[in-house]
Amino acid sequence: MNEPTLSDAPRSGAFRLLQALAAGGAEVCFANPGTTEMPLVGALDLLPQLRAVLGLFEGVCTGAADGYARMSGRPATTLLHLGPGLANGLANLHNARRARSPILNLVGDHASWHLAYDAPLTSDIASLARPVSGWYRAIAQPQALQADAVDGLRAAAASPGCVATLVVPVDFQQLPAPEQRAPTQPRPAAPVVDAARVEAVARVLHAGTPTVLLLGDRALSARGQVAAGRIAAATGARLYAETFPARTERGGALPDIDRLPYFPEAAIQALDGAQVVLAGAIAPVAYFGYEGLPSRLAPEDRLQLLAAPGEPADLALEQLAELLQAPRVVPGVAPQQWPVQAGPLTPVAVGRLLSNALPDQAIVSVEGGTCGYPFVTASAQAARHTVLTNTGGAIGQGLPVALGAAVACPDRRVYALQSDGSAQYTIQSLWTMARERLPVVVLITSNRRYGILQTELGRSGIEAGEQSKRLTLLDDPPFDWLALARGYGVPAHTATTTEELQRALAHAQAHTEGPVLIEMRLA
Amino acid sequence: MNEPTLSDAPRSGAFRLLQALAAGGAEVCFANPGTTEMPLVGALDLLPQLRAVLGLFEGVCTGAADGYARMSGRPATTLLHLGPGLANGLANLHNARRARSPILNLVGDHASWHLAYDAPLTSDIASLARPVSGWYRAIAQPQALQADAVDGLRAAAASPGCVATLVVPVDFQQLPAPEQRAPTQPRPAAPVVDAARVEAVARVLHAGTPTVLLLGDRALSARGQVAAGRIAAATGARLYAETFPARTERGGALPDIDRLPYFPEAAIQALDGAQVVLAGAIAPVAYFGYEGLPSRLAPEDRLQLLAAPGEPADLALEQLAELLQAPRVVPGVAPQQWPVQAGPLTPVAVGRLLSNALPDQAIVSVEGGTCGYPFVTASAQAARHTVLTNTGGAIGQGLPVALGAAVACPDRRVYALQSDGSAQYTIQSLWTMARERLPVVVLITSNRRYGILQTELGRSGIEAGEQSKRLTLLDDPPFDWLALARGYGVPAHTATTTEELQRALAHAQAHTEGPVLIEMRLA
Repeated sequence: MNEPTLSDAPRSGAFRLLQALAAGGAEVCFANPGTTEMPLVGALDLLPQLRAVLGLFEGVCTGAADGYARMSGRPATTLLHLGPGLANGLANLHNARRARSPILNLVGDHASWHLAYDAPLTSDIASLARPVSGWYRAIAQPQALQADAVDGLRAAAASPGCVATLVVPVDFQQLPAPEQRAPTQPRPAAPVVDAARVEAVARVLHAGTPTVLLLGDRALSARGQVAAGRIAAATGARLYAETFPARTERGGALPDIDRLPYFPEAAIQALDGAQVVLAGAIAPVAYFGYEGLPSRLAPEDRLQLLAAPGEPADLALEQLAELLQAPRVVPGVAPQQWPVQAGPLTPVAVGRLLSNALPDQAIVSVEGGTCGYPFVTASAQAARHTVLTNTGGAIGQGLPVALGAAVACPDRRVYALQSDGSAQYTIQSLWTMARERLPVVVLITSNRRYGILQTELGRSGIEAGEQSKRLTLLDDPPFDWLALARGYGVPAHTATTTEELQRALAHAQAHTEGPVLIEMRLA
Repeated sequence: MNEPTLSDAPRSGAFRLLQALAAGGAEVCFANPGTTEMPLVGALDLLPQLRAVLGLFEGVCTGAADGYARMSGRPATTLLHLGPGLANGLANLHNARRARSPILNLVGDHASWHLAYDAPLTSDIASLARPVSGWYRAIAQPQALQADAVDGLRAAAASPGCVATLVVPVDFQQLPAPEQRAPTQPRPAAPVVDAARVEAVARVLHAGTPTVLLLGDRALSARGQVAAGRIAAATGARLYAETFPARTERGGALPDIDRLPYFPEAAIQALDGAQVVLAGAIAPVAYFGYEGLPSRLAPEDRLQLLAAPGEPADLALEQLAELLQAPRVVPGVAPQQWPVQAGPLTPVAVGRLLSNALPDQAIVSVEGGTCGYPFVTASAQAARHTVLTNTGGAIGQGLPVALGAAVACPDRRVYALQSDGSAQYTIQSLWTMARERLPVVVLITSNRRYGILQTELGRSGIEAGEQSKRLTLLDDPPFDWLALARGYGVPAHTATTTEELQRALAHAQAHTEGPVLIEMRLA
């Protein structure tokens, strides 16, 4: 393997582009390339410091980039094949956009002189990219290619982060390109707390106004949560995390901060009559609109901004705690094992057993409500861990995010708590986990249905007939999870009782050479 | 199951919309719904004549719609969940657009009054839809909902067909809606042959100009091919099919019409010096642009239009044959078995064995070059069959198209000749095949690599290093195809020799209760 040299020898645009990204701090490229990306693929051979991770499907790559970005805080890159390749990655880019994850997509395209001929793979990439991209550029000339790459990386890594998309015509990858300006590390904006906002919130709390602190983004760091806990202890303010945070620290003696409920009735009740202080969270709105219920979960005149996403909400909370002279020590929840009765598996038992099993510094990627909610309820008394949730609601996010988190954090154990229906959207993730020897513990809640859709049918007052039953049940045929896992080179076990799940979790934790899948058959 | 009644009782917009589609000729809805589509799901219970087929992933639904539309000639419908659900279906809609398949996507969206609040699943659906949609509309008022649906269906079923996308906010699905104008069957434009073009081509052929007839669309019907064969016999014109036709009839004593070669060097040579008459085909361009090779495979001044896609190219060819007083009988290729040597499996052996095995009126969905080209070469002497290819180059099309073709043609046997790499993009198709008891024979070419990318690396003069090898090899871990198939309820076999493949094909043909998968391990 050659070391990259910065000699005067002519180098391809592909090399120059990746060189600039590597110099700018990019370390991983989640890739599913095709013909128009071959020069970039060849250039990766010369830049081993930019690790290529192959996905069998583009949604695996973009979801993994999201997980990597959330855990590392650094921009992830992807390599995708023209418009259709990008299209396959859009759903998880939608989630990444909502998570404000720094991602730079490299999308290969036809040679610039070939585009006008509308060959079969030609499409309007800009139109596809824009709904998810905070920054978009198609490289228009080979001279500016390194600058384009650095601009994209910097845009992605801004605060808050965003999805950036850079389209790279294959001829500009092939042609020699000069080394341009010295690539510079994207410089994150220095964190600044808005003191006036802190004082305004302090006044509200001093006045005894019933207050909810709604925490998102950096407010859900350990530091942010401890500060929020101090404020709550000093003032009686109630604390909620936003419903689907990109990243939350939890357990390990942190305060138990519940998530704002999913269904609007319960969320409205939770916020009712209170001043809602936004600490890294945006104004809460209903996930879906239901007839007769408002979209805003709290009226606008009750909202007060402490820190927007991307701003240092954790520091703002600390300053607020100091201003309020809040006690320095807050009573957190001591880590403690749940007692779990022997017997059939229920969602509550799954949540508690996983909470019991988590080693210190575990990462849990949660997708699917059936066991997700019970787990988050239970895990306040787990060891210190990080929870990653589905921020944008596009299904198929949990497995790739776990994959990317495992790439970012080789020293931490990663768990993917996943429902059977949602696992199917990006099932190919299992293969990359096996290929990269990532010790992810994949927990599949096997209830053989789209549980949320049956709930929603019920909420709409629709009595399920033959076709709607067929559209919400997954039991004909049932998935054989052991076989699917084996198909991708992942060892697997089935648990149908609490004892079996406990044993399987212990076994999985001892298995550090690669992923393990546990099918959890619910009672 | 209730019969739909057209009483005066108030019906939901969802019911009215589907009622209009059913009255307009829609018979199947390939669906992966979510919360915002629940009223449409409920309404399907009242309209059993509109058959719902569930896909685990949206790309399965859109690819199946394409296969259904190609084989039935009637518009297929899909049901997708907001922007992200549509996004997951875009790659196969890109292929469907290139195939000019009539498809109407129903995309649910937030309640119209909820959209402004930018809830997590909100996205710019129009921007996502436009690159694949010849027709797009977001329903703006419940009163016009049946007319909107009929307009969309009619746009999709125009000649040539297109992908139409109709966005349906959930509140308009829920609210009562009146029955509007009598829904009418979309009226296909009457086929008209342009006599002047026929005469112009006849003059060129009379003059003895070297001529290639490039056949696409309806010219690749049996009728079109027979007429083309007559013209070739009378004039010495050479015949080519376009490289990736949406649908070709083949075998069963039809003339052996080769496809225009994929790589531009060979294609340019095939057309060199000839007048190129476009019969249902568009002007041929290189699939990708390669430095030093032109994008146009034939210069513009050598192109002559006989019939555009959507026009009756088959009838135009017949009129041309008559005008030329071509012989009424053309020597086709008599169906005949290939002799196949016992031994290890090669792509040529696979092509010939499959050609031998095809029953009359089989349908073969081909994706992946490794065995695809050898099969099409071999199958001129097969029984009469229909070949469906990947029209747009977005990978993951072959399995869903086979699925949709099987839904459209329950009396014909369907084969999916598929490469291992491309099968992974929409692997979830296997489950729907099992669920719907579709007797599809899935043939997986297992060479554990992205063969085309290794070819393209070689063409670029790139010597593969460590990372580019890892990005083009699929052997670590190898897929366990028997396990993957079993995971989705599909029985499977492995063939490593010609004898084993022959036996497996015979066994599969006898199995009519559902799909079978055959892993073909190449030597």
